[in-house]
Amino acid sequence: MLAVDRLYQQLDFILAIDQLKNIQRQNLLLDGSRRENSAEHSWHLAAAAMILAEYAREPVDLTRVLTMLVIHDVVEIEAGDTFVYDEEAAQSKAQREREAAQRLFGLLPPDQAAWCRALWEEFEGRQTPEARFAAAVDRLLPILLNARNGGYPWRRHGITAGQVLAKNSPMAEGAPLLWEHVREVVADAVQRGLLYDDAGGPTL
Amino acid sequence: MLAVDRLYQQLDFILAIDQLKNIQRQNLLLDGSRRENSAEHSWHLAAAAMILAEYAREPVDLTRVLTMLVIHDVVEIEAGDTFVYDEEAAQSKAQREREAAQRLFGLLPPDQAAWCRALWEEFEGRQTPEARFAAAVDRLLPILLNARNGGYPWRRHGITAGQVLAKNSPMAEGAPLLWEHVREVVADAVQRGLLYDDAGGPTL
Repeated sequence: MLAVDRLYQQLDFILAIDQLKNIQRQNLLLDGSRRENSAEHSWHLAAAAMILAEYAREPVDLTRVLTMLVIHDVVEIEAGDTFVYDEEAAQSKAQREREAAQRLFGLLPPDQAAWCRALWEEFEGRQTPEARFAAAVDRLLPILLNARNGGYPWRRHGITAGQVLAKNSPMAEGAPLLWEHVREVVADAVQRGLLYDDAGGPTL
Repeated sequence: MLAVDRLYQQLDFILAIDQLKNIQRQNLLLDGSRRENSAEHSWHLAAAAMILAEYAREPVDLTRVLTMLVIHDVVEIEAGDTFVYDEEAAQSKAQREREAAQRLFGLLPPDQAAWCRALWEEFEGRQTPEARFAAAVDRLLPILLNARNGGYPWRRHGITAGQVLAKNSPMAEGAPLLWEHVREVVADAVQRGLLYDDAGGPTL
């Protein structure tokens, strides 16, 4: 491969992922003005991971965490954002995202396609300290935003505190102190009427 | 300082910088649908830096590059985005941004405030290989987007090819091959009528 072809492949990928700025998430910005998109969410996660790395359960390689967070959502360009509490969409999510990864990372030169694919699979698999910490930060931020701006997606979809705690409990594996904080935030959100309490759900 | 106070300071900073998602830049998204904001721009730079690190003039520490790019624009939350071709705004930019850095990074615990402040100053100073490469990527992306989607900010502000080349020539220090590519993109944009040619400007 000529060096110039390699650069063109890399630039094609970089321009293709611009589309992540158009993928709408369920949660709003902190000021409640509009829904967040997945590109700015990915930036916010990288910033949060920089600042909160000391709370990882095991020491983490920050480069791996940051590169993983930067690319972890690009598959949504083709597969869409799947709301974490949408059980139906979750069933087809893995297959849709695998196909998207194949096509999008396939725009890159083979060595970088393999690198990005491996980072994305590491994030999804949550088997390394870096992936577990990155996944914990990915769950922390929407909860903090929802708790501060009126709980819009929770109220809109009738989400209960038990659902939030059950779905996000993997945070404990990646960042136990941040998970403790989330449990307090959820209890407070119930008090303020942003989240339904649920009989039979986990004790807050 | 109690550990819990430290966490609250860190979360205050993380929530404060959510506002970067509302800072509008001059350039549009690739699809031309709207102006880009500085948070999604910062994400796009981090992704581009991951993929293009091999073009840095000198070998770079990717963690330093990524952390620098993630926080380099947060001062815009208070100081606003300064259009690179706006000479008048450029004069007050440094002072406005220094004050913003003082207040925003000052939300963090002292050790992290000093770390982020140093990263931001390193980026602005362009005296290290990491800062020069990060600055080159920061200049590359808006040029690629403008050249692909009709050159909206160039045409709106009557920017000439000479201005683009003069303003962005520091790219050559950080990533000479990417700068060569930009020179070709600019020559092509003149051919397609997206940029004014200018007698007396640099030869394309």
